[in-house]
Amino acid sequence: MGEFELIRYYFANQPATASVALGIGDDCALLQVPVGQQLAVSIDSLVEGTHFLPGTDPARLAERLLGAAVSDLAAMGASPLWFTLALTLPEATEAWLEPFARRLAERAAELGIVLVGGDTTRGPLALSAQVHGAVMPGKALTRAGAQPGDLICVTGTLGDSAAGLQTLFDNTPSSAEVAFLQQRYYCPQPRLTAGQQLAGVASACLDISDGLLGDLNHILQATAQPLGAQIITDQLPLSAAMLQQFGHIQGHKWALSGGEDFELCFTLPAAQRDHLATLTTPVTVVGEILARPGIFLQYPDGQLITVPPSGFNHFAS
Amino acid sequence: MGEFELIRYYFANQPATASVALGIGDDCALLQVPVGQQLAVSIDSLVEGTHFLPGTDPARLAERLLGAAVSDLAAMGASPLWFTLALTLPEATEAWLEPFARRLAERAAELGIVLVGGDTTRGPLALSAQVHGAVMPGKALTRAGAQPGDLICVTGTLGDSAAGLQTLFDNTPSSAEVAFLQQRYYCPQPRLTAGQQLAGVASACLDISDGLLGDLNHILQATAQPLGAQIITDQLPLSAAMLQQFGHIQGHKWALSGGEDFELCFTLPAAQRDHLATLTTPVTVVGEILARPGIFLQYPDGQLITVPPSGFNHFAS
Repeated sequence: MGEFELIRYYFANQPATASVALGIGDDCALLQVPVGQQLAVSIDSLVEGTHFLPGTDPARLAERLLGAAVSDLAAMGASPLWFTLALTLPEATEAWLEPFARRLAERAAELGIVLVGGDTTRGPLALSAQVHGAVMPGKALTRAGAQPGDLICVTGTLGDSAAGLQTLFDNTPSSAEVAFLQQRYYCPQPRLTAGQQLAGVASACLDISDGLLGDLNHILQATAQPLGAQIITDQLPLSAAMLQQFGHIQGHKWALSGGEDFELCFTLPAAQRDHLATLTTPVTVVGEILARPGIFLQYPDGQLITVPPSGFNHFAS
Repeated sequence: MGEFELIRYYFANQPATASVALGIGDDCALLQVPVGQQLAVSIDSLVEGTHFLPGTDPARLAERLLGAAVSDLAAMGASPLWFTLALTLPEATEAWLEPFARRLAERAAELGIVLVGGDTTRGPLALSAQVHGAVMPGKALTRAGAQPGDLICVTGTLGDSAAGLQTLFDNTPSSAEVAFLQQRYYCPQPRLTAGQQLAGVASACLDISDGLLGDLNHILQATAQPLGAQIITDQLPLSAAMLQQFGHIQGHKWALSGGEDFELCFTLPAAQRDHLATLTTPVTVVGEILARPGIFLQYPDGQLITVPPSGFNHFAS
């Protein structure tokens, strides 16, 4: 099969959706944004050798790519609509395309998002997904808006993805804990419901892709006035698998600076604290926004550590 | 400068536009599609070693990437709105980013499109642009809809891009003709005005990226009934530079099967022929849609050649 036939065969049959007037196969897809709503868009890439090792199962790439991209919609409080895919492959083979396309379709159905277009080219393995979602004007969760005294909250547990990656590097023997951590690394679960429930309520929100410290710093930098944050390290939510496999000291390190958790970090006016009980997603208050710059880690032994702003830098050596 | 600073420095300052509620720098951009219009989206990639040679001037990459992507909007009759950029670079240097970002901003302004988001990662040089445009429902130009008897029309001149690439391979000494052909290769001029003027008028339309034969075949395949086409080779529009540099025999070859002209190929009911005079873009009638399958090339000496459907296949050896 040639390029056109391969692409048509594996990607052309997408579920019909009312908002898609014309899907894959023309120069453009034609789409109908829900009346009265804004469009939220984000693009994310995965590159072999940078984000994953050569030989990674294509099904794993499909779920990581889509999970990470849709997480950006969750972080805005948007509802997923459509995505496009730019796929660069050394060669187009059934052995790669079949498991990739199958898992992509499964995850897309689970996340409620539809593939509407793409471009497939030859070259070093790389994947980009652009996702589109809808959100009511004025309700989107942005990074800007935190105020001194706001609670700093996170969904789920932190650091699992970095721990899962470590077990892959270490070839750690399989166990229920190891499987859980590796699944957290491979298959991001965008916090769509939490994002939508927080839209119009949280004062700032983003998804944690660079580690809590790095991403929290984005929130602190997004306001005109210089802000800071205090984190109570003892409050950082760690999974049972993390505690079992690595313990709380290593767990806290990864919670603070491990990458790709894709949990939400949001700030909430203290007066809205009761709202947390209405969320259907586990949420933990881990600290508070301060009026003075800097991030301060409060340890249970009374130690207070001031950390320099740092994030995961793809181009740092 | 780290990644975040580099990106912020070179890409963060984009022109303010009413349709952009939130631009670069958050998890998603927030966008307002013009009321009552459909969204047209397309994604296009350029990969080093596949689409361009190592060491290509980054400013040239910027204009090719954006021109090729926006051409898909032109082919639908859509008006450009926004684009996102996925950039994979071996290293993020000012020497590369500065000329790239500068030319990208220039071309974006010329084409009336605004950068609203992106993702920059480390890896082998590759670029993807996703473009968004607006079109009135029911007016978009698709590939489907040609009927027997329809005129086959093209904008501008064909084959120039392939000729320009040949002069680059040959290191042809510079001249006005060579400069023209190379400019046609480097800097696609999306036929936005023609596309918009043809919206609701042409029966089918696409942009020529794989050569007239390959792309015309997409139009023939897009209808339920099997269609064919007759092309009068003598009518194929060639530029003065093409005729001067390569002559009409080679020119016709490239017009039929050279890639990346980014001119429009559209079909028009014969009764609408007068509409061609109202277009502000040069258009040539090059043939006619037939009820019987196959593409037939009518040569001026009376020779009739039947060509197999063929397009530019990225994965063909």
